[in-house]
Amino acid sequence: MTRDASGLSRRGLIGSAAAGGALALAGAGAMAASASTTTAAPVWSTVDFHGDKQAGITTAAQDRLHFATFDMLPSATRDDLVALLKDWTDAAARLTQGKGAGPVGPLTGPYDAPPDDTGEAIGLDPANLTITFGFGPTLFTGTDGSDRFGLKARQPAALARLPHFSGDNLDPNGSDGDLCIQACSNDPQVAVHAIRNLTRIAFGRAAVRWSQLGFGRTSSTSQAQVTPRNLFGFKDGTASLRAEDTANIDAHVWTTPSGDPATAWLDGGSYLVVRKIAMHIETWDRGSLREQEHIIGRTKAEGAPLSGGGEFTAADFALAGRGGTPLVDENSHLSMAHPDHNGGVRMLRRGYNYVDGSTQLGRLAAGLFFMAYVTDPATHYIPMQTAMASSDLLSEYLQHIGSGLWAVPPGVHEGEFVGQALFS
Amino acid sequence: MTRDASGLSRRGLIGSAAAGGALALAGAGAMAASASTTTAAPVWSTVDFHGDKQAGITTAAQDRLHFATFDMLPSATRDDLVALLKDWTDAAARLTQGKGAGPVGPLTGPYDAPPDDTGEAIGLDPANLTITFGFGPTLFTGTDGSDRFGLKARQPAALARLPHFSGDNLDPNGSDGDLCIQACSNDPQVAVHAIRNLTRIAFGRAAVRWSQLGFGRTSSTSQAQVTPRNLFGFKDGTASLRAEDTANIDAHVWTTPSGDPATAWLDGGSYLVVRKIAMHIETWDRGSLREQEHIIGRTKAEGAPLSGGGEFTAADFALAGRGGTPLVDENSHLSMAHPDHNGGVRMLRRGYNYVDGSTQLGRLAAGLFFMAYVTDPATHYIPMQTAMASSDLLSEYLQHIGSGLWAVPPGVHEGEFVGQALFS
Repeated sequence: MTRDASGLSRRGLIGSAAAGGALALAGAGAMAASASTTTAAPVWSTVDFHGDKQAGITTAAQDRLHFATFDMLPSATRDDLVALLKDWTDAAARLTQGKGAGPVGPLTGPYDAPPDDTGEAIGLDPANLTITFGFGPTLFTGTDGSDRFGLKARQPAALARLPHFSGDNLDPNGSDGDLCIQACSNDPQVAVHAIRNLTRIAFGRAAVRWSQLGFGRTSSTSQAQVTPRNLFGFKDGTASLRAEDTANIDAHVWTTPSGDPATAWLDGGSYLVVRKIAMHIETWDRGSLREQEHIIGRTKAEGAPLSGGGEFTAADFALAGRGGTPLVDENSHLSMAHPDHNGGVRMLRRGYNYVDGSTQLGRLAAGLFFMAYVTDPATHYIPMQTAMASSDLLSEYLQHIGSGLWAVPPGVHEGEFVGQALFS
Repeated sequence: MTRDASGLSRRGLIGSAAAGGALALAGAGAMAASASTTTAAPVWSTVDFHGDKQAGITTAAQDRLHFATFDMLPSATRDDLVALLKDWTDAAARLTQGKGAGPVGPLTGPYDAPPDDTGEAIGLDPANLTITFGFGPTLFTGTDGSDRFGLKARQPAALARLPHFSGDNLDPNGSDGDLCIQACSNDPQVAVHAIRNLTRIAFGRAAVRWSQLGFGRTSSTSQAQVTPRNLFGFKDGTASLRAEDTANIDAHVWTTPSGDPATAWLDGGSYLVVRKIAMHIETWDRGSLREQEHIIGRTKAEGAPLSGGGEFTAADFALAGRGGTPLVDENSHLSMAHPDHNGGVRMLRRGYNYVDGSTQLGRLAAGLFFMAYVTDPATHYIPMQTAMASSDLLSEYLQHIGSGLWAVPPGVHEGEFVGQALFS
């Protein structure tokens, strides 16, 4: 039997069994019977996988992240790619609803085959798990310039490797990738479980290039969420778009139809910009509060612009203090990142704090895993980062060590697979 | 003003301010006034720092971990060590109650000095934060054999570097350390914040040697907790001691008074064994369910011994199946780790799943960060691990890559500092 056929999810069963006490279960059949006759399955927190847009973009930002990028194997064919995307779609639809990665699940036989789910999420609430897929430039044009999957003519012009920015010190083994998967959940074990099982499904077709865990979100994507703090101790993402602001989401997050049939597959999708930004934590911590606030352009307590007001008060860049100096420095992070100084662009940020342990110098290997969804990186990220890399006061305390850009296709409807329009 | 003097914690103030809406706060005075006249501070989840035992041992296991080890700087004196332990004690007492690391906190001036708290935990519930301190062998006898802090005569015989076990592949930069701090919380940002600020306090006296994040607990330390799963998908720590089992906790976790005044400082304390155990996830995932269960000796679904019953049913090692073969293999993990085959020893496990991203081969750099509190490593860990390293069927899928042993002094009472008896 399969779990799905019974209409009960794997986790529902286990949850019910746990709620029913110490049930001695001889096998899956007994378990299903016990569960269905004792208590109802617990109510999980789930986010729809299907829809016009992929989940995990305007979804209220979950607390934890596992992000992975994949390269197709040299031996992989276009058919392998299509099959992989179909398999990933099926698995993601199951996982996000709290079911196993495969149709059987982790709990029962066939005993002489590997389980089609690895099991570490048994009994865990998906905790709003979302799984979001992206396609990198190298999926379309191989690093050798080849058209290995017959997709070269379908590559949008904006889907190109991000340029070198001043101060970049990128790890090639922690940058780029043919494909990416963002798994977000309020339970890190659920996010890790998703990436692990999707990796497993890719076996023989694609392999992980690199992956990153994030432990605390640094943006809010809903007005219902309090603005979180980054590892410099400041509120982060105050100006980031919230899902409720649909007009600006439409203008700044979703792609604009190009009118070109070759790239129409991305219409209504987005671009995901990823930057792994190491923070010089120990240096920052030795700065005075005055200096920290000067660099950011906001108060540390409230996150209010130094020109006055509260967190969401508009900054007054002209307001001068003693000696006629503007209260908000024109090179402060607030000023450099402000839409008024960047052609009015906004972005939906979805980043996370990370700590990869400590360096051999005893410093925290920590920083911000920056993620932003934008309508076009050429207008909505590259100009801003070019300016910030050279002139943002905060840059002294940052080093960009990882980078990537992916096109994020629109949502998947029942019976479709992610990115399907790219192959038609 | 200081936060503590007002009787209101830093986080309480911010929480109240947030609850009160968009308060425009000119400074700390205004903030305190607003907070005290609007709403009560939120109720945090806190664990007492003071007591006969250090918190974080029998405390119900929190979900997230940041563990760090420290080496005293070559220039540090005994007085520096004492001062550091006093400073750490003061900070830990504050942090665990949701206050800042220093008496001032992160929010206000003196504006021309660095804040005495780094701020990223502002507004966060401590979420049962515990901070637990341990002393490593090298604190007593330097790696060069020296008596650098005048503590050599106070070193318990059991506090020696763990021996080499078969298959060990230890990273010296991820093993050992003069001191260790275990920070556990249900919020990872709170745990990271604690380690970061304690590291900062150590500046000029001690530096981090290595640190590790754990994202999901792999043991329960309370009977109220469900047994969690490790990254092999199996329940872990079923046989681990629970706090409610006080007789066994007394017998197997707390040290036995030696009657020797030189080492009496550790009476009522414990030993912390740490092993970073990399799991060959991808290899494991290719094994059949039958093989996985055979290796563990338990069912994957329920965690029941293969001899029958439920998770907490005693294993019947004599019960044979077809062909007279015992249902629970004598080399299964269950059998190898069982008290009946290890002189009756039990341990209080407090480990965590970890993922350090991916290797350059695209494999998960993941496993179990094993932590166990025992009365004596010579009886309660070394014999078991010696046997398991060579004969446990599970060893084929494991590699121990980090290791450490620390003596964990008893609890701290008001006005004392951690380990104080060691210096008297």
